[in-house]
Amino acid sequence: MKNKYVYSFHEGSKEMKALLGGKGANLAEMTNIGLPVPPGFTITTKACTRFYKEGQILWQELLDEVNIHLKELEQSLGKTFSNEENPLLLSVRSGSVYSMPGMMDTILNLGLNDISVEGLAKSTGNQRFAYDSYRRFIQMFADVAMGIPKIRFESLLEDKKEEKGVALDTELTAEDLKILVEEYKKVYYEEEGEPFPQEPIEQLKLSIKAVFESWNNPRAIVYRKLNDIPDDLGTAVNVQSMVFGNMGDMSGTGVAFTRNPASGENKIFGEFLINAQGEDVVAGVRTPRSISELKDLMPEIYEEFVASANKLEKHYKDMQDIEFTIEKGKLYLLQTRTGKRTIHAAINIAVDLVEEGLISKEEALLRIDPNQLDQLLHPTFEEKSLKSAKIIAKGLPASPGAASGKVYFHASDIVEAKEREEKTILVRQETSPEDIEGMVAAEGILTARGGMTSHAAVVARGMGKCCVAGCSEIRVDDEMKVIKAGELTINEGDYISIDGGSGMVYLGQVKKEQPELSGNFEKFMDWVDDIRILKVRANADTPRDAKQAVIFGAEGIGLCRTEHMFFADDRIPAVRRMIVSNSVELRQRALDELLPMQRKDFFEIYKAMGERPVTIRLLDPPLHEFLPSKVEDINKLADSMNLDYEELKDIIRELSEVNPMLGHRGCRIAITFPEIYRMQVRAIIEAALDIRKEGLNIVPEIMIPLIGDVNELKYVKNEIIEEIELVFMEYNDSIEYFIGTMIEVPRAAITADEIAKEADFFSFGTNDLTQMGFGYSRDDSGKFLNEYVEKEIFKKSPFEVIDRAGVGKLMEMAVDLGRKSKKDIHLGICGEHGGEPSSIEFCHDIGLDYVSCSPYRVPIARLAAAQAVLKEKLNI
Amino acid sequence: MKNKYVYSFHEGSKEMKALLGGKGANLAEMTNIGLPVPPGFTITTKACTRFYKEGQILWQELLDEVNIHLKELEQSLGKTFSNEENPLLLSVRSGSVYSMPGMMDTILNLGLNDISVEGLAKSTGNQRFAYDSYRRFIQMFADVAMGIPKIRFESLLEDKKEEKGVALDTELTAEDLKILVEEYKKVYYEEEGEPFPQEPIEQLKLSIKAVFESWNNPRAIVYRKLNDIPDDLGTAVNVQSMVFGNMGDMSGTGVAFTRNPASGENKIFGEFLINAQGEDVVAGVRTPRSISELKDLMPEIYEEFVASANKLEKHYKDMQDIEFTIEKGKLYLLQTRTGKRTIHAAINIAVDLVEEGLISKEEALLRIDPNQLDQLLHPTFEEKSLKSAKIIAKGLPASPGAASGKVYFHASDIVEAKEREEKTILVRQETSPEDIEGMVAAEGILTARGGMTSHAAVVARGMGKCCVAGCSEIRVDDEMKVIKAGELTINEGDYISIDGGSGMVYLGQVKKEQPELSGNFEKFMDWVDDIRILKVRANADTPRDAKQAVIFGAEGIGLCRTEHMFFADDRIPAVRRMIVSNSVELRQRALDELLPMQRKDFFEIYKAMGERPVTIRLLDPPLHEFLPSKVEDINKLADSMNLDYEELKDIIRELSEVNPMLGHRGCRIAITFPEIYRMQVRAIIEAALDIRKEGLNIVPEIMIPLIGDVNELKYVKNEIIEEIELVFMEYNDSIEYFIGTMIEVPRAAITADEIAKEADFFSFGTNDLTQMGFGYSRDDSGKFLNEYVEKEIFKKSPFEVIDRAGVGKLMEMAVDLGRKSKKDIHLGICGEHGGEPSSIEFCHDIGLDYVSCSPYRVPIARLAAAQAVLKEKLNI
Repeated sequence: MKNKYVYSFHEGSKEMKALLGGKGANLAEMTNIGLPVPPGFTITTKACTRFYKEGQILWQELLDEVNIHLKELEQSLGKTFSNEENPLLLSVRSGSVYSMPGMMDTILNLGLNDISVEGLAKSTGNQRFAYDSYRRFIQMFADVAMGIPKIRFESLLEDKKEEKGVALDTELTAEDLKILVEEYKKVYYEEEGEPFPQEPIEQLKLSIKAVFESWNNPRAIVYRKLNDIPDDLGTAVNVQSMVFGNMGDMSGTGVAFTRNPASGENKIFGEFLINAQGEDVVAGVRTPRSISELKDLMPEIYEEFVASANKLEKHYKDMQDIEFTIEKGKLYLLQTRTGKRTIHAAINIAVDLVEEGLISKEEALLRIDPNQLDQLLHPTFEEKSLKSAKIIAKGLPASPGAASGKVYFHASDIVEAKEREEKTILVRQETSPEDIEGMVAAEGILTARGGMTSHAAVVARGMGKCCVAGCSEIRVDDEMKVIKAGELTINEGDYISIDGGSGMVYLGQVKKEQPELSGNFEKFMDWVDDIRILKVRANADTPRDAKQAVIFGAEGIGLCRTEHMFFADDRIPAVRRMIVSNSVELRQRALDELLPMQRKDFFEIYKAMGERPVTIRLLDPPLHEFLPSKVEDINKLADSMNLDYEELKDIIRELSEVNPMLGHRGCRIAITFPEIYRMQVRAIIEAALDIRKEGLNIVPEIMIPLIGDVNELKYVKNEIIEEIELVFMEYNDSIEYFIGTMIEVPRAAITADEIAKEADFFSFGTNDLTQMGFGYSRDDSGKFLNEYVEKEIFKKSPFEVIDRAGVGKLMEMAVDLGRKSKKDIHLGICGEHGGEPSSIEFCHDIGLDYVSCSPYRVPIARLAAAQAVLKEKLNI
Repeated sequence: MKNKYVYSFHEGSKEMKALLGGKGANLAEMTNIGLPVPPGFTITTKACTRFYKEGQILWQELLDEVNIHLKELEQSLGKTFSNEENPLLLSVRSGSVYSMPGMMDTILNLGLNDISVEGLAKSTGNQRFAYDSYRRFIQMFADVAMGIPKIRFESLLEDKKEEKGVALDTELTAEDLKILVEEYKKVYYEEEGEPFPQEPIEQLKLSIKAVFESWNNPRAIVYRKLNDIPDDLGTAVNVQSMVFGNMGDMSGTGVAFTRNPASGENKIFGEFLINAQGEDVVAGVRTPRSISELKDLMPEIYEEFVASANKLEKHYKDMQDIEFTIEKGKLYLLQTRTGKRTIHAAINIAVDLVEEGLISKEEALLRIDPNQLDQLLHPTFEEKSLKSAKIIAKGLPASPGAASGKVYFHASDIVEAKEREEKTILVRQETSPEDIEGMVAAEGILTARGGMTSHAAVVARGMGKCCVAGCSEIRVDDEMKVIKAGELTINEGDYISIDGGSGMVYLGQVKKEQPELSGNFEKFMDWVDDIRILKVRANADTPRDAKQAVIFGAEGIGLCRTEHMFFADDRIPAVRRMIVSNSVELRQRALDELLPMQRKDFFEIYKAMGERPVTIRLLDPPLHEFLPSKVEDINKLADSMNLDYEELKDIIRELSEVNPMLGHRGCRIAITFPEIYRMQVRAIIEAALDIRKEGLNIVPEIMIPLIGDVNELKYVKNEIIEEIELVFMEYNDSIEYFIGTMIEVPRAAITADEIAKEADFFSFGTNDLTQMGFGYSRDDSGKFLNEYVEKEIFKKSPFEVIDRAGVGKLMEMAVDLGRKSKKDIHLGICGEHGGEPSSIEFCHDIGLDYVSCSPYRVPIARLAAAQAVLKEKLNI
């Protein structure tokens, strides 16, 4: 079947997604399990890739194949193209392997021309409907296939309504629409220099081409990049006979989920419009009605729909998102797909499906995208702050979460504001795929129009971004850049807050708080913890972080950065004096001031963590990072040290470096000024000895950063152990402790066998390992790494996802060499990658003992770790 | 013989150096070939290491063994300790495996006490001599064994001379000395609380201990560090019966070389003193006489000495440095060792020895330290002028040579002074690429900051220009245009002299001498070239450098840095306009101006190199390095671009980076601005096509810097080949060319298999590979790397000598992976290490095809490459 590019629905199945696209495969599957699907066929994704390979031309054999299927279609339906009685009309839709909602093009009512419009009028007995369809088709075809601006047609429609003194399209008569059709055709001729094509085959050919081409429209490219969809997959084209939801009151159209996509509740959830086409629901022009109302309006149809929905869910073993149309009292299913859902719903559904016996726990775990858990952990507005917050309006709770930010009306303004590090809310009448980049950059999205399945709502949920949609109480003027809400005027740059869980919109900024995690979440995470092998720790520098980490299930602290403590207001003066001291005595005096504060830090952190392991990294950044740059601060410091301004300025200048990332930092500082680490180690050990009196047995893990050579480690370790022995003597007591090192310098990875001899544990610092392995400064590489991704030199920035071929290879070397020297050396990761699912999978694969990440990513890491086990088992 | 710690001279041999030390082994060897050596024995280095292991105590078995040998000695000489007639007197000397002249301790005349002093007087018939010896012994023993300051004794001597109204020690009578001896003993008692030990065995025991302990005196430790001598070898102790050169006019002592150590001339060269002890020669108190005068004074002794010297040279097959003493008309040899010599003499001696049939060519090659060749190629300060020169400070010997000139602080001032035909020294805090023209115009460069691989050092070495870097003892104020060095102030226009071989900085002008390259040098280098396998290329950026490289025997250019050409006065304006252009068109216009200049550069370089291969590296440094920093320069550039000052300032600020070393440079620039490399490649290819008309077939090797991922290489290569194809079309002609890459990013080494698929050659950029492998910024690490070496964390800075365990391992990986993908990939090195002998040996060992280094290091590299072959063959 090498050269077969077209498949009837009855020839396909849901397993043929790669070839037929998601929509095509599901249409075929639904057809084959006996659900009422309007007949049609699918042109494969392989045809699309061939189309691009051959210079974007449709080849004759493809057209021949399409023709054969058209004939079949005509025969099975008893309809033909350009028929005056009962014409064949088609929808032409894109359908890629991965869902890309609204990103690509669709053409409806294809086949309408000056003859078949009359046939449609006859067959439906509704001339007005026929001409309205013809009008819509011309506009859609002109827009999608020929690129003629919609506004050219819309203004004619507006003119006509004005001329007739009516407000709604539906108030125009068949005659009005007939005239409009002629005007539309004239516009088409003006734009194209050719008449509107009357030949349906010609229409179809141009439409197929347009759908293929829409694979590479800019918004589709952006969407694929955002969603990690490969660019070379191509889209299928689904050609399907039309059914009409706008044939009167026994017709309608809708979208429904088999379970609630926000809460996961096992109850059909959806919306429909009577006497409307599908686009009306999606566009949110009319406010749709809840699916439950259909029960009263058309009980039989409702029953049939519910039965079909249940059948689909059982068949697919997952919650389905179904599009349907009722044509003159007959139900048609136009599409089914796995329904998008909030993470909250996803967890509830996954747990319910397991309990319903439909799927296994393992399947449930694999269904949740770990990154989505993030949403669960996002803050909500604090109850009591809400009480005093001024409500502006209420819209639909389209995507959960809470966000405050400055109001902007255009995606580009949002992007610019983001560069200024402003938090923003994108406010639009309704969003369109063109707004994608603004949606990514904004904290939240507010639209005045559109329902729960509008573009804004669907896309925001996918992103896990807070969204309030269809907030009809506000008026958005994006020209004047104002929101009007009753008496209230909100200008660009004003702060608002939106609650995607309640749909409320508030004036100003509202204080946020942490969410509570549901019982299903806990059950789910228990399953996760049963399966995973990797331990999950958190990077936490404060008792507050440590507490949060424990709440999220952290099994220890993998990275406690002592330098963050140095920046506190009460400490920075002593830190600065310590740094600019020109003698060991002066430095020691400043360190003596810091000691009790550091000891208290550690004491509190130990307390928060109970007896969970705590890895404390000794001072890492270059000292000059702590020094003041403002004149007044320099003066203050100079005064406190009896130096004059210029002297101190000189010292600061002396400490500055050309490449601070590769400069005097980490263990290098400890080699020059051993007294700094000695103070820190003393604080660590004293705090552990002190807390033992409260019954906690702490085994501190002391981590030395930036080791590149085993001799550095030996030297620093010597110093540290000497100090620890002193403390033990003073306390006349001792405790167990470990000394380990970061593996973050490439040379450390390469010589890990030597280093392991001196280290109880390794913790991979993949941020620095990436910086030095690639030679990319994180601070400077942004400007060219974006270009690398755009030019497809890299798929992802190596700072986001571990570069397995390079940095990963260094890690593997270090693991192998380290274990060769010390079989039971404890291995972890504490770089940013420790909270990124694909990197966590890699850490599992190379056999690390734990990952450590920010507290908010701990649940994500737990799930990713469990999935890594399952993927390994299933070899996926 | 596990527990044998003492060897008589007749029990040892020259092969037992590790056990007996150099001196002991040679004394044994001389004894055994029948030369007149005063009898004695050697306590082994193993005894010394056991001494340190056992808490610095002499164990009884050792003392017993010493006693046995003492008895033997007494028997063979017919002398005994504390004998009133003919007492046994001993010298006790250190003797380590490697020569450490004057670093450790020696005690002479051991055995003298109140009784044996009379015996000595009797046996020599010279009471004065006996008491003088006793006096000296007490002082030496007190100093060396007990740590009593010499001044305590010397002041008594001075008092005595004053009292007696005499100027010289020799004018004191036996009676005076007798009194002095009593006074010395009193001082000893005062200091030690015990009388001066009269028991010779006790004296010997304390002396052996003192010699062992002197292994770890501070100056010995420093010397070992400077000369790469391991700390754990320990010293042997040679106990030898005394002979006296101060027993009247038929006695004497001297030092002689079997050949001239300065010129290599095959004629005994040395000095002696009549009626003196060896220490008098070394101390230089009396002016010694030339050895040739001995012929007249004591013809028989002279003949015997010459015969012995010849015998020794033939026996050791190398020029010897011999100590001798004549006691009452009898010759004794006290020591022989391989004589130190200038590189000039070394080459002449090596060649002569080969021609005399004493050694093979291979042996001759192994005898020359490649680093020493450097001296042959640069002027040096005249020895005797140096003696009177005032030392200002000492910095790092960054680039060899000697230079005197007027001090200037700015490159532009240097250039102007050069126009006035002044000789100048550029003095900077540290240099930057902006200083290049000043560096070219100056005689030498002095910087207060930066290490051996700082910008100043690297560039100066490349130019063969004298440079002292990192001279932290001076403060450079380039605003006030002064150098402060302690009390001293040096103003602009004052003369200083710098020695890039020693790091010394002198006030005023010091007379220089030019080296001459002898015929023997050429002969020697021919042998070198016959043996070596590694090719040697030069790093050369200009036709002048290229010519110099060819003179020194370079077989091609391994690194032609195109950026250095960008700094010339006639180019920098266009370069700057190119950089700050905000459109491709403007940038292209600036590049169009640069094209003919670059083409001419390459044309001239090809011409200078004949058909030798030339590797040209495309633009490497971050663009901001080319931008002006001074207000007037910014203004000038702004004017030329119709920008105002602030606009341009903003652009410059925008381009600056936090860590430029890891920033937007190398191939990363080419990915953002492909037109830059396109211009350069066009110039390379056009020049090669042009020069073909002159009959030269050039096969350019185009090298892309900073590749970390094969996709970077693919992208840039694509662009380059496109441009080359354009040039071929325009010329209607084509040539062969290669495209390769630097391996300087750790990730490139790790993924070299992938990269090799796209590269014709690899050139290791070990400077960057070291920077990124260790995470040490070359510009910043100077301040802590010095400390690393002092604290013995590193033996050598990895920027000086390739770090085999880490950076070297990366290189080996790259070689293996590269060859696995492409069997015949051409491999070289162009980092600074390419001119460092031990690194060159490593390059040979891992199978590189060539090394490339600065022209002035080419002869060094050639020799090191040959030695690598020999060492491999001999497995040393």
